[in-house]
Amino acid sequence: MHDGHGRIFDPAARRWTRTALAAWGEPVPPRRALDWLQRDSGTPLRAPVAVIGTRTPTAAQVAAAVAMGRLLAEHKVTVLCGGRSGVMEEVCRGVAEAGGLSIGLLPDDEPEAANPYVTVPLATGIGVARNALIARAACCLVAIGGGYGTLSEIAFALQFKRPVFLLEGAPAVDGGRVCSDAEAALDAVARVILAL
Amino acid sequence: MHDGHGRIFDPAARRWTRTALAAWGEPVPPRRALDWLQRDSGTPLRAPVAVIGTRTPTAAQVAAAVAMGRLLAEHKVTVLCGGRSGVMEEVCRGVAEAGGLSIGLLPDDEPEAANPYVTVPLATGIGVARNALIARAACCLVAIGGGYGTLSEIAFALQFKRPVFLLEGAPAVDGGRVCSDAEAALDAVARVILAL
Amino acid sequence: MHDGHGRIFDPAARRWTRTALAAWGEPVPPRRALDWLQRDSGTPLRAPVAVIGTRTPTAAQVAAAVAMGRLLAEHKVTVLCGGRSGVMEEVCRGVAEAGGLSIGLLPDDEPEAANPYVTVPLATGIGVARNALIARAACCLVAIGGGYGTLSEIAFALQFKRPVFLLEGAPAVDGGRVCSDAEAALDAVARVILAL
Amino acid sequence: MHDGHGRIFDPAARRWTRTALAAWGEPVPPRRALDWLQRDSGTPLRAPVAVIGTRTPTAAQVAAAVAMGRLLAEHKVTVLCGGRSGVMEEVCRGVAEAGGLSIGLLPDDEPEAANPYVTVPLATGIGVARNALIARAACCLVAIGGGYGTLSEIAFALQFKRPVFLLEGAPAVDGGRVCSDAEAALDAVARVILAL
Repeated sequence: MHDGHGRIFDPAARRWTRTALAAWGEPVPPRRALDWLQRDSGTPLRAPVAVIGTRTPTAAQVAAAVAMGRLLAEHKVTVLCGGRSGVMEEVCRGVAEAGGLSIGLLPDDEPEAANPYVTVPLATGIGVARNALIARAACCLVAIGGGYGTLSEIAFALQFKRPVFLLEGAPAVDGGRVCSDAEAALDAVARVILAL
Repeated sequence: MHDGHGRIFDPAARRWTRTALAAWGEPVPPRRALDWLQRDSGTPLRAPVAVIGTRTPTAAQVAAAVAMGRLLAEHKVTVLCGGRSGVMEEVCRGVAEAGGLSIGLLPDDEPEAANPYVTVPLATGIGVARNALIARAACCLVAIGGGYGTLSEIAFALQFKRPVFLLEGAPAVDGGRVCSDAEAALDAVARVILAL
Repeated sequence: MHDGHGRIFDPAARRWTRTALAAWGEPVPPRRALDWLQRDSGTPLRAPVAVIGTRTPTAAQVAAAVAMGRLLAEHKVTVLCGGRSGVMEEVCRGVAEAGGLSIGLLPDDEPEAANPYVTVPLATGIGVARNALIARAACCLVAIGGGYGTLSEIAFALQFKRPVFLLEGAPAVDGGRVCSDAEAALDAVARVILAL
Repeated sequence: MHDGHGRIFDPAARRWTRTALAAWGEPVPPRRALDWLQRDSGTPLRAPVAVIGTRTPTAAQVAAAVAMGRLLAEHKVTVLCGGRSGVMEEVCRGVAEAGGLSIGLLPDDEPEAANPYVTVPLATGIGVARNALIARAACCLVAIGGGYGTLSEIAFALQFKRPVFLLEGAPAVDGGRVCSDAEAALDAVARVILAL
């Protein structure tokens, strides 16, 4: 994969390297490049993308969460979340509909606390301190609405230098980037993963 | 699925219920029942089984870890581990060979610390305190050799009432159960999952 | 201790109870009442007050941190902080000057990482996930300046229903209360402790 | 302070340095040297000593815990524990009787869960994962009886290279050192602190 400007993408290191080769062919949009990375490159991104947000979503936030889950799953990206209700449940529902993989990092002692759509529930037993782990484990985060809990995850993510994309009224923190909808957030995620 | 003694298995609750139906057909061994649960029941076990152990394995411990990973993956069971080297790496290698899913709960700040076979690395950033999370998140654990780190995981697991199966010189703790090899450990795991 | 309106303070429960007794004597300001609670009541507040903030303080932030530490220590309140440099170090310096007690919850593996003024360093080994513990362990928090780390602590604190007082450019989060200086913050802290 | 063999103790670094000076005076026993370090040297040990153990102590274990707390407090050593009942409560009682300082690292969300003798309760909200922090934060540990929870703390401590002293039926782990009683454990603790 090249960028039309003489650079080729090293999928293992997820880095672009300048090459002497002339550019050829058509440029592809980020999400097609993401597909190639996740399906055909042999070295897909393994670290998950986190989707976080409010436990009491509006209809628009539900729609955004389901769409986000479906889009990430369609591009074979693993989704990380808090495993509980609200946005966490809706994103897992979207992932499940697309046959993808979601991991729920639960605050609870037992996996039964997970919502029914989580593929793999991980009971941490450490309460909301698990928010720090969600921010750390993700290569980037998409926030959909949310209160203090979501704010703590965004703050940690920015401290850990993970890009944060804000949807549907997520807490506005300097350093986060507002996206208009799930499609725009997927493009932003794809660009992070492709180091564009 | 029934047990030949008038009880049928509820895969969602993973519980046996007495029924008035007469028993019929042949009894199946635990691992065939596990296959049914994980492939055909529609409600497979979602919580992972953890494989833990020494960072400096002997040849026998390497063989046991690879076999354990392969067996669990063949039965569609998600494997949880510490994501680093030694037994953690070998079990992930076995899982990868069988096309399964492994999750590596890393002590580190960045996913690059994971061994190359982990399907999904989760960088926790909390150091070896993540041992408590491995014990909590697993429905049962298989230990292959190991020192103080493995011992802390076994102790936590038993405190959390997770069964622990000991292979190839794992720390002998009262409450853990010694297994002769990976095949025997798989049977023991299957019986836990099937609530037998 | 009474409030001049027919209520007396139960120091053990830190609750005010209505009484039939007529009010008598002069009302005392919160900080004198705090002194009584911490020195003479026999049931002082035991949970610490946290002071958090930037690692790169301005002169005004240094002054506020030192003053805050001194004031809390003079009123026999235990101070909790992150144990490192910047505001964490300056508040411990203030506490030390007044002969008080400070506890530093370090992200590091070893206590040697503590600043020289911490009375008791506690090496947690869990990195900045310890921010969640600072917010949880404190009965209220004073933030002096600060970036993403401080923001994560404020977010957790508000989620845990711990009052947060903001000084000298601390991240402005809805639910936090801006104070003009360390004296005003002490009064606010005293009112929290006294359940006023 | 010298060791009678031409070495003097640097209290800040807690290290012995060879000197050209001839030895003079009488050798002092470790606990008198500890007193000097903690009271007169100006650079006392700040990191705490942990006392851990069973929630359901026998009369002998109660006596050992109270004695241990009293001895450590008399030598001005800060005591760290889990803040709850059993050995944790008894050691805090001993500390309180001697007017010392105990810190309770609680698994709970609120400080009210602490036993009444803890000087400073720290609610971590992370459940028994806090065991890893007790082992990390202590410069050495004394275990009095105990089950799986205590075993996890001993395993972590030995992994972190913290000496562990075993009293009254504490889990026997290779690398831990059995002591006959609290007095002997105090001598062992003093030798660790003095780097003897």
